[in-house]
Amino acid sequence: MISSVGRLNKPVLYGYYRSSCSWRVRIALALKGIEFEQQAINLIKDGGQQLTEQYKAINPMQQVPALSIDGITLSQSLAIIHYIEETRPEPRLLPADPKQRAQVRMICDIITSGIQPLQNLYVIQKIGTEKVQWAQHFINRGFDALEPILKKTAGQYCVGDEISMADICLVPQVYNAERFKVDMSPFPTMRRINQSLCEIEAFKVSHPSCQPDTPDDLRA
Amino acid sequence: MISSVGRLNKPVLYGYYRSSCSWRVRIALALKGIEFEQQAINLIKDGGQQLTEQYKAINPMQQVPALSIDGITLSQSLAIIHYIEETRPEPRLLPADPKQRAQVRMICDIITSGIQPLQNLYVIQKIGTEKVQWAQHFINRGFDALEPILKKTAGQYCVGDEISMADICLVPQVYNAERFKVDMSPFPTMRRINQSLCEIEAFKVSHPSCQPDTPDDLRA
Repeated sequence: MISSVGRLNKPVLYGYYRSSCSWRVRIALALKGIEFEQQAINLIKDGGQQLTEQYKAINPMQQVPALSIDGITLSQSLAIIHYIEETRPEPRLLPADPKQRAQVRMICDIITSGIQPLQNLYVIQKIGTEKVQWAQHFINRGFDALEPILKKTAGQYCVGDEISMADICLVPQVYNAERFKVDMSPFPTMRRINQSLCEIEAFKVSHPSCQPDTPDDLRA
Repeated sequence: MISSVGRLNKPVLYGYYRSSCSWRVRIALALKGIEFEQQAINLIKDGGQQLTEQYKAINPMQQVPALSIDGITLSQSLAIIHYIEETRPEPRLLPADPKQRAQVRMICDIITSGIQPLQNLYVIQKIGTEKVQWAQHFINRGFDALEPILKKTAGQYCVGDEISMADICLVPQVYNAERFKVDMSPFPTMRRINQSLCEIEAFKVSHPSCQPDTPDDLRA
């Protein structure tokens, strides 16, 4: 059963351990120090728990993540992260400078509109054959664009030296790339930033290998 | 030849008359009353002008739109629109209330991540057969989710009675749906809002039927 209200009024994240979009929200909540409950929506079990009528009432797109917070339920990871940013501003996930903010959002959108939707489970299932090649193609196309952009915008992280929404999107996408065995050697900037970010506590505690619904054999 | 600097320092929009993502930016610029120049990037001609090395330097994703403004060049329509909103706040394209802002962004992201990327020209070209059915499937899936959301959030427009980024995303997506002959009868809320918006000057002047690069036989 899906419980729709968190005990003690904590936000409730409806997610799946391995979903890169769920991971984005987990990172943002961890960076902000927001305690939350997790409600696992298993995208494989029972033919996909996201497809139940009960979950459809939470997110009509029948995807994860969704977040119940402050009396509303939101879907779409970037919209959720923007809401968290606007209501819990510290530490900030967007730079102060409008041009840098634009660069952060451009990097986010390349990943969230230009890469992830084309290699997610639902779409891959609709492709008849060559599922892995399809995913690799769209990840490589996006990374070919991201690498020269990051070369210009990056400091220690994607845009300058502050962790931003761009970093929140980058790490789960690199994780997906590795699952699809994409050769990361042409993307040294991305690899360097990803390695730095993976050492940070908020990225570690939110990792797919250590969530409540992570299967035992995949547990770190 | 692509000229990269606008005369008189006007912003330069690299776009294509029929691209729904280009249309989003044209609407935002029109609503804000920002004069701009257009540089047509024909996605069909010469095998796709977005694929040239010259355009790749402007947008490494080799997609439209891109906007040169205030000395920087941005891609990804929503990132561009957010930049315009943050640097030219009037009239606002996001509500003041954070929960309403979240609803606007959720609707935007359903369209920009959940629908458009899966029915755009590049992806459709990669599908072997059943191109139209593929596009219809993903548009219907997204509209099935949008309709109940809009029933809750809409006033005169997508969220309440103020035009927002959600409306900017809605109208070009409905235009795409009509191109792919999607039956709009199950989506009365969407149809009503779309009809209201299509009467507004900023949506009219930015329409694909009246751009500098619109072919004569498609001109309104």
